[in-house]
Amino acid sequence: MSDVFERAARIQPLDAGAMEQARVRQQQLTKPAGSLGRLEEVAIQVAGIRQNPVPVVERKAVIVMAGDHGVTSEGVSAYPAAVTAQMVYNFLRGGAAINALARHAGASVVVVDVGVAAEIEHPDLISHKVAHGSANMTTGPAMTREQMLEAIQVGSDVLDTLVGRGIDMVATGDMGIGNTTASSAITATLARAPVALVTGRGTGIDDELLAHKVRVIERALARNAPDPRDPLDVLMKVGGLEIAGLVGVIVAAASQRVPVVIDGFISGAAALVAVELQPAIGAYLFAGHSSVEPGHRVILARLGLEPLLDLKMRLGEGTGAVLAMNVIEAALHVHREMATFAEAGVSTRDEG
Amino acid sequence: MSDVFERAARIQPLDAGAMEQARVRQQQLTKPAGSLGRLEEVAIQVAGIRQNPVPVVERKAVIVMAGDHGVTSEGVSAYPAAVTAQMVYNFLRGGAAINALARHAGASVVVVDVGVAAEIEHPDLISHKVAHGSANMTTGPAMTREQMLEAIQVGSDVLDTLVGRGIDMVATGDMGIGNTTASSAITATLARAPVALVTGRGTGIDDELLAHKVRVIERALARNAPDPRDPLDVLMKVGGLEIAGLVGVIVAAASQRVPVVIDGFISGAAALVAVELQPAIGAYLFAGHSSVEPGHRVILARLGLEPLLDLKMRLGEGTGAVLAMNVIEAALHVHREMATFAEAGVSTRDEG
Repeated sequence: MSDVFERAARIQPLDAGAMEQARVRQQQLTKPAGSLGRLEEVAIQVAGIRQNPVPVVERKAVIVMAGDHGVTSEGVSAYPAAVTAQMVYNFLRGGAAINALARHAGASVVVVDVGVAAEIEHPDLISHKVAHGSANMTTGPAMTREQMLEAIQVGSDVLDTLVGRGIDMVATGDMGIGNTTASSAITATLARAPVALVTGRGTGIDDELLAHKVRVIERALARNAPDPRDPLDVLMKVGGLEIAGLVGVIVAAASQRVPVVIDGFISGAAALVAVELQPAIGAYLFAGHSSVEPGHRVILARLGLEPLLDLKMRLGEGTGAVLAMNVIEAALHVHREMATFAEAGVSTRDEG
Repeated sequence: MSDVFERAARIQPLDAGAMEQARVRQQQLTKPAGSLGRLEEVAIQVAGIRQNPVPVVERKAVIVMAGDHGVTSEGVSAYPAAVTAQMVYNFLRGGAAINALARHAGASVVVVDVGVAAEIEHPDLISHKVAHGSANMTTGPAMTREQMLEAIQVGSDVLDTLVGRGIDMVATGDMGIGNTTASSAITATLARAPVALVTGRGTGIDDELLAHKVRVIERALARNAPDPRDPLDVLMKVGGLEIAGLVGVIVAAASQRVPVVIDGFISGAAALVAVELQPAIGAYLFAGHSSVEPGHRVILARLGLEPLLDLKMRLGEGTGAVLAMNVIEAALHVHREMATFAEAGVSTRDEG
């Protein structure tokens, strides 16, 4: 278990030399300096992550961590908790939004049951059920410390296995009815923000249910008193098994120098926990998109990340992250394939 | 010549029936209603354009119109005018940003010389040089009416040829040193906006040159007095040959019910002219991205278009539009491939 934290402690900053070489190359390509905007920054960041001034990304995966939430018994979601397992089957049969988007992006979908309440069997499922859902956080901690550590380890192991198979960029995804409730609780605590400011409609609740959801989270925080200076205490008390799994994915990816594209609010909450554990992780992350969930903005501000896309999405599953992978790949293609001014015989601005 | 305008007059609104069927389908797919945000709207819009509730896009092209600008003799650009032809060669050899991005997007790059000052020969170039660059708009109209109409016809013909080859989505692109100056002049006139508000740094000029560029545009507008109620008068007097070519592309694409992804400021100026000619064209357009050029925002507001991407780009060539094609394709894949609640056996919100 402590393995993950030892690895986190050893995570290094990005490779400044590779980034400088990438920056110089960007200046030489046949375009006005800076005119490709964030595509230039993305290429330079990936150079630093991969320790390669002209990096390539060839094999991509989205890791969808699934888990249930005891807090759903408080009636915080528009959908019944059974939908978690039903959607996991949908992922495994290829019928969900994440499947369509991942096929389009050329990324494989890796589905992990780290804590779904129902039994799920499928040959393509990575099954490592730490518990049959988390406990109801309004009456005590969502997880035991052992459960949380095990879920983190599951995520870390999945990432390591994928890297062993040649995956060089990952997106994070989630499935878990009730997990915006847990993510709001995490965000409110770690960002020291009022619950109402970081709580949204999730799958689509009305005003009355939203007010109820805020009160449920406030009760859970009052009951558990998570320590904002201890991200693991927060994760354990008001998080969830799939969020812990994503923390493991993110820590392991940074440790392996693999770029991680963070999806929306739930993945963002996991990223927040990971970066509070080890600030060096932040440089390995890309914010795939800006979610409609209000707490996501608070997370991005705290992480200092600017989202690549803003398409008013709020689905989770990794959908926004997988879409953003295309932007990152485009940036790398431009960086690698464009001719320099000298190669193309194009005048620079000084030759006017 | 009048052919293009007859076609423009016959452009129909989007197919409301196909859009309604697409909207109903979006409600049935296994996701909370609305949770895919703009991807849902995009799919519904393409359904209306293609008159098909579940449309497909299979063959894409970016049309890069190239032309020179007499106004460059006033010293408005950071780069010498010779760069237009040099960059056209770069496009034809595959070394420019648009080539890398189009390869990544699976789109072909169609380069059209509609008015480059230098002679250019290359087997892959569509060469229909209306003039060796436009005239200096500070001393008279940028084009004659005949030149403008011919350039519009070139764009329309190119689009028709591509559609004949099975192209079902196009992006607009441009190359022409000096063309932000022309685009600012068009935008200031048609949007009735102060020149300084819609004039930016183009390829990267400093404050002093920016102030000079604003004065040059103001002189050109004073000299030509383009009529803001007559978009063709504006295009002729302060536009450019490649901008006229793009107007032809846009009108013909809408007429053929082909979605057009508009790039940044120069393409946007062409779209503004096209939509002022025939407001029904607006529904066939997607704004690929938000350019850093300040006038682009004014154009998008006037067209009522929300850009799909905002990556701080300002290169032109069609780069932002080609990147955005991926988002549109992703939206169509989701729309076509996702399972419905009934197909997947997933509970809807009413079954809680």
